[in-house]
Amino acid sequence: MGIVVQKFGGTSVANTEKLFMVCNHIIAEKEKGNKVVVVVSAQGKTTDDLIRQEKEINEKASLREHDVLVSVGEQITIAKLSMCLEKLGHNAISLTGWQVPIFTNNIHGEALIDYIDIERIERELNNGNIVIVAGFQGIDEKNDITTLGRGGSDTTGVALAVALRADKCDIYTDVDGVYTSDPNKVDKTKRIKSISYDEMLELASAGAKVLHNRCVEIAKKHCLPISVRSTFKPEDEGTRIINKTEYLEGSTVTGVTKQSNNSKIAVIGKNNQIGRLYKVFKLLANNNINIDMIAQAAGEDIIKSVSFSIQDKDLNKALEVLENNKEELQIHEVKHYSNLAKVSIVGLGMMNNPGVAAKMFETLYDENIEIKMVSTSEIKVSVLVEEEQSEKAVSSIHKQFII
Amino acid sequence: MGIVVQKFGGTSVANTEKLFMVCNHIIAEKEKGNKVVVVVSAQGKTTDDLIRQEKEINEKASLREHDVLVSVGEQITIAKLSMCLEKLGHNAISLTGWQVPIFTNNIHGEALIDYIDIERIERELNNGNIVIVAGFQGIDEKNDITTLGRGGSDTTGVALAVALRADKCDIYTDVDGVYTSDPNKVDKTKRIKSISYDEMLELASAGAKVLHNRCVEIAKKHCLPISVRSTFKPEDEGTRIINKTEYLEGSTVTGVTKQSNNSKIAVIGKNNQIGRLYKVFKLLANNNINIDMIAQAAGEDIIKSVSFSIQDKDLNKALEVLENNKEELQIHEVKHYSNLAKVSIVGLGMMNNPGVAAKMFETLYDENIEIKMVSTSEIKVSVLVEEEQSEKAVSSIHKQFII
Repeated sequence: MGIVVQKFGGTSVANTEKLFMVCNHIIAEKEKGNKVVVVVSAQGKTTDDLIRQEKEINEKASLREHDVLVSVGEQITIAKLSMCLEKLGHNAISLTGWQVPIFTNNIHGEALIDYIDIERIERELNNGNIVIVAGFQGIDEKNDITTLGRGGSDTTGVALAVALRADKCDIYTDVDGVYTSDPNKVDKTKRIKSISYDEMLELASAGAKVLHNRCVEIAKKHCLPISVRSTFKPEDEGTRIINKTEYLEGSTVTGVTKQSNNSKIAVIGKNNQIGRLYKVFKLLANNNINIDMIAQAAGEDIIKSVSFSIQDKDLNKALEVLENNKEELQIHEVKHYSNLAKVSIVGLGMMNNPGVAAKMFETLYDENIEIKMVSTSEIKVSVLVEEEQSEKAVSSIHKQFII
Repeated sequence: MGIVVQKFGGTSVANTEKLFMVCNHIIAEKEKGNKVVVVVSAQGKTTDDLIRQEKEINEKASLREHDVLVSVGEQITIAKLSMCLEKLGHNAISLTGWQVPIFTNNIHGEALIDYIDIERIERELNNGNIVIVAGFQGIDEKNDITTLGRGGSDTTGVALAVALRADKCDIYTDVDGVYTSDPNKVDKTKRIKSISYDEMLELASAGAKVLHNRCVEIAKKHCLPISVRSTFKPEDEGTRIINKTEYLEGSTVTGVTKQSNNSKIAVIGKNNQIGRLYKVFKLLANNNINIDMIAQAAGEDIIKSVSFSIQDKDLNKALEVLENNKEELQIHEVKHYSNLAKVSIVGLGMMNNPGVAAKMFETLYDENIEIKMVSTSEIKVSVLVEEEQSEKAVSSIHKQFII
């Protein structure tokens, strides 16, 4: 008799009717002979509503009180879902983050899980209860409520599954799996049946929004199989995210993604100052500006200039910081380009296949799409292109590699 | 520098505007140099809404899950009120029942407070914080959330004030004090400036709904002064509830109350069986039927028959229980009358004044109102009358004794 963790997102628990649909998944797993632990998010727009009420009172409320307020969302869901299961004749018990307890650090609003005490959950499971746990929340060493930040319920689910040594964690959501590209924008996308942790991580960081990166990282570290599947299509198996050693259906490219709102900055130095590279990035890091892609100009000017990409929202701040330090950094000129999109291909199969990047560039060349910057990892190739050309870029690459 | 506990009910915190009005009372008390602990209820109709949602899911949900659900109401209020105080430049910190912690027994939905650990509250007060505590809720020894039942936030306020050895507990509500009778139904009622614990207890049990009996009992036991005052009339002092030794303004009758939905049952025995009296009431108690007034017929039939009053809602069950045990109890006949109202006068001044009851009966006789039953305590006289005559009864008695 194994332990299975199921996680249901806000859309899946949005109203009473949907809560009873969720019960079907829970009961089905229990009737297979498993012990079931369920992690839930707040219902529908509850969290957004609470935040709206908070802003009405105080735009700069303390994050401690923010966490006290928004954590009620999941508490409402756990009580209601337990009541639904009771109604259907099953024993269920709800546990808030502090009741589990799920210990976190004290970074309110963005807390990280330190440790999960599984004693109470195990006791309740052994008493024959289905255990319903509030996602997204924990408790710090001061006994204060913390929240894990948006998407944190996935992390709760995976972290609980790891702590309980569960057989698997099924993430139920309103989409039926991970696709080769955004099905709403690209023709003939296919659902991915199984994908490795690394590919999923690259896809998520490249713009796919199905799973939170943190939960994939935890699952990878502990080799916990995750499935992403639809609450509303119980017959569908969805997408499995598994260790690469289990990965059998190798295809060169697993997915094509797009992430908008990128800017590129080119810093051109007055001379070949050796320390400029680290000084520029240290300065930006000190100002909390996240750098994504970095490219140095090739050739003789290798240490004279450097280009990098950042989020559009950070552009003005980055330019200001560089301007203020122009003298010290011996900068000749700072150029910038905004409204760019990052288009990426991800796939384990490209690891030993040097032709993949070339084929991607050729595809873009054939479509007359200019590449502004390139960055590669073992299993990913990303390019920056003009936003207005990005959808065509994704479609043509998807057609070339996947269909 | 003393400690003051303020309690604000659901109407007083119903929306953002009112929360900021509540802040004025808190800040005023703090600026007098006091440490302030605030207890709040759920906003407006929040608790009713949550219960409606619960009933939609499961009419017979477990009380444990009920408590998990409804306790979010106060949690929302404490976070919001803290955010309001922060907005106004004051340091505030919210604490749920389990964070205080307020330990209760495990009777979900109707829990009694066992013990309050004041260490955290004292620490927060010493750090210069206004402490905002969720009323109505606690935690049991299993680490489960409990609620104190309706009106429980008053009890939280008074119990906290006692535990903290506070100077006083001010109960802010939507009425501006305790009145000599219901101002909405009786002419020329007067607000009572101060009243003894015992009178308040009798008034509350006789139908006045301003304060929960439990909180008055706790205040009496520890000689804690309570004030009942209006959130919306800050200049008003309201009604003080104090120890009788401080009580100076003796008037014969302090208040006149009415409680509807009473039934009377008369049990007539076949014979003068001595044990019938205790057997009847033991039987009813075993069936969870609360008896209010009891009257035995006078004269030679003193142990042959007995009459008592109960709530209308318990009438059918009581009649069924008596019918099922008719033989054993040697009952000749059970008569019943429903739709009666209990009209009471309460006042310390009547203790050594035997004419008060007579004057009350005479007033009712003059108004042609038949008395169905009488019961008296040291400071209260209650009579049962027909519901349709009860408002006239209250008005004429109020006119006779108070105006």
